[in-house]
Amino acid sequence: MVDWQGLSGLLFDMDWLFLVGTAAFSVSGYLIGVKKRFDLLGVLIVALLTAIGGGVIRDILLNRIPVIFFDASSVWVITATLLVSWAMSLHKVYGVGMYRVFIVADSIGLIAFSLAGAELGIHYGLNFFGVLFVGFVTAIGGGIVRDMMVNDVPFILHKDVYGTVSMLVAGLLYAANSLGWKGAAVIWSLFALGLAIRLIAHWRDFRLPQV
Amino acid sequence: MVDWQGLSGLLFDMDWLFLVGTAAFSVSGYLIGVKKRFDLLGVLIVALLTAIGGGVIRDILLNRIPVIFFDASSVWVITATLLVSWAMSLHKVYGVGMYRVFIVADSIGLIAFSLAGAELGIHYGLNFFGVLFVGFVTAIGGGIVRDMMVNDVPFILHKDVYGTVSMLVAGLLYAANSLGWKGAAVIWSLFALGLAIRLIAHWRDFRLPQV
Amino acid sequence: MVDWQGLSGLLFDMDWLFLVGTAAFSVSGYLIGVKKRFDLLGVLIVALLTAIGGGVIRDILLNRIPVIFFDASSVWVITATLLVSWAMSLHKVYGVGMYRVFIVADSIGLIAFSLAGAELGIHYGLNFFGVLFVGFVTAIGGGIVRDMMVNDVPFILHKDVYGTVSMLVAGLLYAANSLGWKGAAVIWSLFALGLAIRLIAHWRDFRLPQV
Repeated sequence: MVDWQGLSGLLFDMDWLFLVGTAAFSVSGYLIGVKKRFDLLGVLIVALLTAIGGGVIRDILLNRIPVIFFDASSVWVITATLLVSWAMSLHKVYGVGMYRVFIVADSIGLIAFSLAGAELGIHYGLNFFGVLFVGFVTAIGGGIVRDMMVNDVPFILHKDVYGTVSMLVAGLLYAANSLGWKGAAVIWSLFALGLAIRLIAHWRDFRLPQV
Repeated sequence: MVDWQGLSGLLFDMDWLFLVGTAAFSVSGYLIGVKKRFDLLGVLIVALLTAIGGGVIRDILLNRIPVIFFDASSVWVITATLLVSWAMSLHKVYGVGMYRVFIVADSIGLIAFSLAGAELGIHYGLNFFGVLFVGFVTAIGGGIVRDMMVNDVPFILHKDVYGTVSMLVAGLLYAANSLGWKGAAVIWSLFALGLAIRLIAHWRDFRLPQV
Repeated sequence: MVDWQGLSGLLFDMDWLFLVGTAAFSVSGYLIGVKKRFDLLGVLIVALLTAIGGGVIRDILLNRIPVIFFDASSVWVITATLLVSWAMSLHKVYGVGMYRVFIVADSIGLIAFSLAGAELGIHYGLNFFGVLFVGFVTAIGGGIVRDMMVNDVPFILHKDVYGTVSMLVAGLLYAANSLGWKGAAVIWSLFALGLAIRLIAHWRDFRLPQV
């Protein structure tokens, strides 16, 4: 059984969600790397950063050596995703249908990693703010670093409710935990809720107001 | 008694300085976020990063979980500052008088956080360079990350003596400590010195020469 | 005997290589800082970041306080390099001959720091991916942060085989170590191999293909 970045002990049965999320994050890095006309290594770095950056930053914040340095199973998922993307020239055949699949996969990753990060934060005894922060960073940190690196203003700063949903499920997990509600049922409920909000918000193009 | 990011044990009686500094850093993040036309979450993230980024980087460097994940009191200050800024549409009423208040508040934060960071570095047994680095990062790290994120070249790289003063007070604190001069009197003297230099340099528009 | 960022215990006799590499990284930071018209402090920060950034990120990833905060010997090398660069107005007299010297010195730093980082990763029991990552980050992390800070897309994402060579020697060191081949002979062989590949690739202007 694959131990996704050491999280499966906490969130059992969610392995395939992390797999889907990791693959989606790799694809999003791949597409940006190709669009920016980086060379092979550049595309690889950007895709890797997107997919593992959040987990690495989470581990730095939690004061431990990145789990991926001891269990590299997600590196294999990323490598396989990149090979397939490259073999099928994904950036050329990328159309509306594929975009829809990508959004669903990416949203699965967003919610699964937010919940996993928040769970870990609770496990470390962090306060509400810390749990929110760690959940958010686990899910979105890789994308932020990628955007900073390729000189885009991070998408999270001006793009729909992506980050809000991440914080929402992390915050709700903290609240549930404080009330003594724990276990798989709580996590799966929050997962379903978060995924629904994210997808509905995306398709209705809901945006947060500007100040 | 509020324990400002775990620092008040070291720098007693300076609590209100950290409060003023945190509020000023939040405002500077708020103004930049609004100017860049980010959405609500974006403005919140930018303001938070500016105000707490330095402390988080300091804690990462000192190899401990960020203090703010256990004591979130400064998050309340940031939230309150943002609510007030938003309620009064600060970015619209921001004029010369308010700018002057802001500069003083921001300078108080600059010097107080530099000294607090340096004090912590000394406490950890770092060398001169380490104390300088940690003092500097505590005060200015948040602003640098914010500027990198919103795609500005960090202000510190080409804007008056801001960073120099931070290093100066940190270095003097290290020197004083080496000479056996410790206690509140030393810190308050350096605080007054640093604040004076910063404000005079600002109003006389003194700049470091270019190479 | 100078203990280069705590590495000489692992890589004895390579001290002068780290010295050459540190000086070269400082010069590359200096030239970029001057070109971007930063003030004195800005140039100093950019040069420092380039030269020590990789080691600091490496230590953060390995969950320890940066070695440079306890042994600042490389700060002296950086300071001396900057003073000499400034005294001779390096950016004005910088021509083809000097560029060639710089490329050799920079390549020595690239390979030496990659090997030292990889050696440290092996020492910490990291897996193949971790060793690659830490070797890469030790050598190139400073340059990446510098480029992100001054708003350039990191050179590593679209510039010849620089990063590939770093990963190659780190990966080979891991492989050699797994086979039980250890000691100075292995490291020196890999050093010579890496340096040769880097220099040949540079002068033939070999580039990785784009996707």
